[in-house]
Amino acid sequence: MSLAGMIEGMAKESKAASRQLRRVGRAQKDSTLELLADKLIDMQADIIKENEKDLTQARKAGLSAAMIDRLAMDYNVIRGMADGLREVAALPDPVGEVSGMRKQPNGLLVGRVRIPLGVIGFIYESRPNVTVDAAALCLKSGNTVILKGGSEAIHSNLILSDLLEQALVETGLPPKAIQVIPSTDREAVKILIGLDDYIDTIIPRGGEGLIRFVTGHSRVPVLKHYKGVCHVYVDEYADLQMAREICFNAKVQRPGVCNAMETMLIHKGIANDFLPDMVKRFRDANVEIRGCPRTLELSQRIKPAVETDWPAEFLDLILAVKIVSNMDEALDHIEQYGSNHTEAIITNDYNRSQRFLAEVDSSVVLINASTRFNDGNQLGLGAEIGINTSKLHAFGPMGLEELPTTKFIVYGQGQVRD
Amino acid sequence: MSLAGMIEGMAKESKAASRQLRRVGRAQKDSTLELLADKLIDMQADIIKENEKDLTQARKAGLSAAMIDRLAMDYNVIRGMADGLREVAALPDPVGEVSGMRKQPNGLLVGRVRIPLGVIGFIYESRPNVTVDAAALCLKSGNTVILKGGSEAIHSNLILSDLLEQALVETGLPPKAIQVIPSTDREAVKILIGLDDYIDTIIPRGGEGLIRFVTGHSRVPVLKHYKGVCHVYVDEYADLQMAREICFNAKVQRPGVCNAMETMLIHKGIANDFLPDMVKRFRDANVEIRGCPRTLELSQRIKPAVETDWPAEFLDLILAVKIVSNMDEALDHIEQYGSNHTEAIITNDYNRSQRFLAEVDSSVVLINASTRFNDGNQLGLGAEIGINTSKLHAFGPMGLEELPTTKFIVYGQGQVRD
Repeated sequence: MSLAGMIEGMAKESKAASRQLRRVGRAQKDSTLELLADKLIDMQADIIKENEKDLTQARKAGLSAAMIDRLAMDYNVIRGMADGLREVAALPDPVGEVSGMRKQPNGLLVGRVRIPLGVIGFIYESRPNVTVDAAALCLKSGNTVILKGGSEAIHSNLILSDLLEQALVETGLPPKAIQVIPSTDREAVKILIGLDDYIDTIIPRGGEGLIRFVTGHSRVPVLKHYKGVCHVYVDEYADLQMAREICFNAKVQRPGVCNAMETMLIHKGIANDFLPDMVKRFRDANVEIRGCPRTLELSQRIKPAVETDWPAEFLDLILAVKIVSNMDEALDHIEQYGSNHTEAIITNDYNRSQRFLAEVDSSVVLINASTRFNDGNQLGLGAEIGINTSKLHAFGPMGLEELPTTKFIVYGQGQVRD
Repeated sequence: MSLAGMIEGMAKESKAASRQLRRVGRAQKDSTLELLADKLIDMQADIIKENEKDLTQARKAGLSAAMIDRLAMDYNVIRGMADGLREVAALPDPVGEVSGMRKQPNGLLVGRVRIPLGVIGFIYESRPNVTVDAAALCLKSGNTVILKGGSEAIHSNLILSDLLEQALVETGLPPKAIQVIPSTDREAVKILIGLDDYIDTIIPRGGEGLIRFVTGHSRVPVLKHYKGVCHVYVDEYADLQMAREICFNAKVQRPGVCNAMETMLIHKGIANDFLPDMVKRFRDANVEIRGCPRTLELSQRIKPAVETDWPAEFLDLILAVKIVSNMDEALDHIEQYGSNHTEAIITNDYNRSQRFLAEVDSSVVLINASTRFNDGNQLGLGAEIGINTSKLHAFGPMGLEELPTTKFIVYGQGQVRD
């Protein structure tokens, strides 16, 4: 069969399974997740053997050490996946809740019920544990899912797919509720995102190139973010010691992720007190600093920034720094170069903190805290399936509660429209 | 300037105005709407004069009587628009509300605030009153909007655009918060839906061809429905008199709209009692009936249905009718041919009513009421900007409350991530 025929067939089966999932209650979904957790532990030797095939291939292909690290599955990774499944099983059911039930003047009782989106297409790279995490969140929220992982993880993903299917079958759920596309062909992505008759939502996770390709070609609505160009603005009324800890954490604690700080904006009134020490601390941690002309006057250890540094997502130990004359200039800079992802202000001034919250157009806006907190778990949403910087549906981190939608239900007694 | 340059310029100005609107409170938005209502009444003679130009053109071009009727603006239509503006002004502000504020274990206080989507591109056909209705809902929800109306209404839309701009300027709001594209070139739609750097959401309203074009080419997320193929299922436990009133209302009261019934499904157990009388009533009201083979045995006044009748949105006095052996067959039929728009069951059986609500995958599902109630006003949402049958963001009718989104706000005291 052609690749297109195969993927369309999977999408049709996913839609049919989605209809069956509408009738399934919480207990059955949870028992599938718990059974899968057991299977992962039971089969860990086999999983590691399949993962080793991917790792061998990856080393041959000369993938970076970071990529190989993300790909590798050991006993700890597998135990983490099993624990994650049990945690999702323990969360409340995100579908079924009825809200806003009110009588209309004509006696109709109108409300909304939370329902699954339907069929989700999930496109991602490297980490094979994402296969299980995403599948669990989709199943718990009553959605079926078609997973397209990175070609470098194909052996790992296929054995996980087998275990997923076994767990579904043994707990009486439709086996096609979770499917992994068994192909490494990149064309599969293009085919998947064209199937708007069967798929309700596409969630891509990966590099900006992949996301832009998906957004540019998809006929299905996409929940995504291109990149995280996150700013911390250190106001003139900041607690400078607090500002140092937060800025260091936001840049250094995990520089390769989307909620790390990429640009630090500093009010000119405290630049002299704040910047030289901060630069020293960053340089000691091997952070390269690229600054505006005013910063160069305050430290010898700053390289001149170029225009392309301001909208850059470095994902590395590199930081752009700019001194601003006032808060308006900071807000203008964020408006121009930001990615609507995560922005923080460090200040003890009440009015400025409130103004920053109100005017910054980002999915998460923080006062006196690190940008690294834009994460479903950290914000209290539980496990996260992704972050959305398009504003529809769920702006920001998306956990279990963000995967459903609502429909209207109406109880009548024969009402007709005048 | 090129058309593309002009529209991109408008989109940039809309985005800049959107930033200004984030700072504007309810009182100022409401006074703009009230001033516009006054201006519509003051200027009604001029509006009617401009509308007459469109009508003359439309008659020359041989547009249908129905199209010309939708295009025409008289004193009553204008008074209705002014009343609508005052009603929107009286509604509560849909942005600014903070919800779910909770302390996380590390002391971070995390919640969500309702904010505008940003910039909306609204694409529609004929009726010039939609220009004012859509502009009012967007402004009240803090969104800026770029309106692309039908070429046949261009003179009407341009005078309304002038009045909108005057009202914005005179109340101190950014004049570019509401803009009408001053072009009848269809290429304008294609340009507009490519501007994902500036526009947050596209809402198209019109025929299925327009909507499919927009969905197929847009880089911006789209809230839309293609068509409404609405079903009423008359169960074997229906109150047949109630069923007759509801089915008649759903088909005949206003056949040209998306929430009119297009297919009637009848349980075989009551077909003999229900159908012949119902067909007589429909035929007396000039409804053409196209039925499955079993219906043909019950009435001489039914034409045989062909396969293309089942997924058809007739938008006319035509009805497809099918007799089903049981409720599963009705649900299968709706799953196969429905459009996720509006479905109703007529029954006095508790279990069947609950099963229909749970299993039908439509934006509005009704028990014992007419499909014609899928309408923002009728369901208690206030004025409606459109109906969305893609499941993201707001599945179903969208009123003022469905135009905003939420962002996360976080109050910290120096927290960093471990």
